[in-house]
Amino acid sequence: MNGKMIWPQTATICEVGLRDGIQNEKKILDVEEKLDILDSIVDSGIKVIEIGSFVHPKAVPQMADTGELAKRMKRVDGVEYRVLVPNLKGLQRAHDAGITKAKLTVSASETHCMANFNQSPLEMMEGFQPCVEFAAKHDIAISGAMSSAWGCAWEGTLPVTQIEKITRGFLDLGINELSLSDATGMADPRQIYEMGGHLRKAFPEVTWVLHLHNTRGMALACAVAALQVGITVFDGAFAGFGGCNFIPGAAGNVATEDLIHMLHEMKVDTGVDLGKAMKTGRLGERLMEHEGGSYVLRAGRNADLVNEKAQKQEN
Amino acid sequence: MNGKMIWPQTATICEVGLRDGIQNEKKILDVEEKLDILDSIVDSGIKVIEIGSFVHPKAVPQMADTGELAKRMKRVDGVEYRVLVPNLKGLQRAHDAGITKAKLTVSASETHCMANFNQSPLEMMEGFQPCVEFAAKHDIAISGAMSSAWGCAWEGTLPVTQIEKITRGFLDLGINELSLSDATGMADPRQIYEMGGHLRKAFPEVTWVLHLHNTRGMALACAVAALQVGITVFDGAFAGFGGCNFIPGAAGNVATEDLIHMLHEMKVDTGVDLGKAMKTGRLGERLMEHEGGSYVLRAGRNADLVNEKAQKQEN
Repeated sequence: MNGKMIWPQTATICEVGLRDGIQNEKKILDVEEKLDILDSIVDSGIKVIEIGSFVHPKAVPQMADTGELAKRMKRVDGVEYRVLVPNLKGLQRAHDAGITKAKLTVSASETHCMANFNQSPLEMMEGFQPCVEFAAKHDIAISGAMSSAWGCAWEGTLPVTQIEKITRGFLDLGINELSLSDATGMADPRQIYEMGGHLRKAFPEVTWVLHLHNTRGMALACAVAALQVGITVFDGAFAGFGGCNFIPGAAGNVATEDLIHMLHEMKVDTGVDLGKAMKTGRLGERLMEHEGGSYVLRAGRNADLVNEKAQKQEN
Repeated sequence: MNGKMIWPQTATICEVGLRDGIQNEKKILDVEEKLDILDSIVDSGIKVIEIGSFVHPKAVPQMADTGELAKRMKRVDGVEYRVLVPNLKGLQRAHDAGITKAKLTVSASETHCMANFNQSPLEMMEGFQPCVEFAAKHDIAISGAMSSAWGCAWEGTLPVTQIEKITRGFLDLGINELSLSDATGMADPRQIYEMGGHLRKAFPEVTWVLHLHNTRGMALACAVAALQVGITVFDGAFAGFGGCNFIPGAAGNVATEDLIHMLHEMKVDTGVDLGKAMKTGRLGERLMEHEGGSYVLRAGRNADLVNEKAQKQEN
């Protein structure tokens, strides 16, 4: 017996390198450097960009200048410049900087949430109510994100009922774009297919975003499984920067270049110029002063190899 | 519209690290070291092991002692100790060393084959005829492998008719276990699904083996696609050692540990003890004196993370 795989015609790439990719990096980029990276991302054709977060500057110094970045950046029509905010105060700062799209995030795990914030996920989401009211008043679009969606360092795999509960919490707040985050890289393709498929059916009103880390090498395999259940929006970080708080030295976010390369090889269009996305990755590696975890930056595209051989033969 | 994914109950891992993993490594392991690795592989429960090759010792000095290894190794019942041979001379050397399973390999690409051997693939396979006759006489089982099956550095993607032609060539020789090799890491999951599915239907008498490299990060995604068309036999190399002749610094074979970890997470049984396979990988890294490209060796298993957190909470 065979499976039946499908290949959507298009997929959407959200570049989160300027937030999740660099937020734990030793070297802190300055605003000029971030503006260069941002220009490069926009130039590659990526239309959704997470430019930073409005969290406490002492907690995450890498994100302290997100307001300045937002004020100084060129705004290109049709590009979504998204930020992550933890609460109303962060949202107000985002609004002051002219931001019109913000992401509210909560851990789906009770234990993880209690350990970090001494609140349950639903208690934490009560704090989102004033955020959505503020956002409505100021024309800010809000999306949601749940971390530990595919597994929790404390609890292991969470019951699907828990993910449903958090999803309903977001829907009650009027938020229907939801990112399922796997910062510990525990998701496997079968889980993505089974739980992702279930959630898509159970909540047809939700636009799902998949936030994958390549901690155990499964990120691209998970993306392929997601396509099979109609999840076609993926976060990625240039050069594969990022990491996992719990696992020192582990691989980071799925590399934007690797994701685009695979999708294009599978004839799934992203609207992104891969060559230009690779330029962003190389710029990022130069500015961070070390390599990330991108395969395509290291080995080149399939087409690069073939062209190189062809040229050698001609000469 | 959704796809329909399937998850076979079992899959087979062939450990090729002692051949493809180390054959281009700078450090040359001695027989004692290879015996230690081999013991560790067998101890993990892997039942198919490519222990080396009988090629010209000057061309591949890393493989020069394959005969000595074969003579000195413990032979455990139920374990297949396979070698790669290029021709009759290699097969005779294998037989002298007591080997009972050998793999004959040819490039599926006309250009690649001409460039390396000044022969077409079919001309090269004519040379396999005396091999199969010798093998039949001496009770040696023979399998076949075609490199460039998923893409060629010179020609790009080969037409499926070319792969069919080589397959028929092997079948005419009486060889019906065939490895489709992707040493340049050009295969993408859609191609695996489409061409793999086609070949499975066109040649139901063939047992297909998939030999993946993680050059562009797609190896595990390709393995998932292979499962969908009933291809369930995978080569892997401990610690992800190996490489690609054409791409200096590129990632190597898919890491055995990563492959097993993903399969087990997806509830596909391999019969291998992953913890013990990780020991092989660590031993390999120690002996080769550098890290390979395994994610699971770097980050640990999903379960390791959860157990570690649980223990911290208890203490």
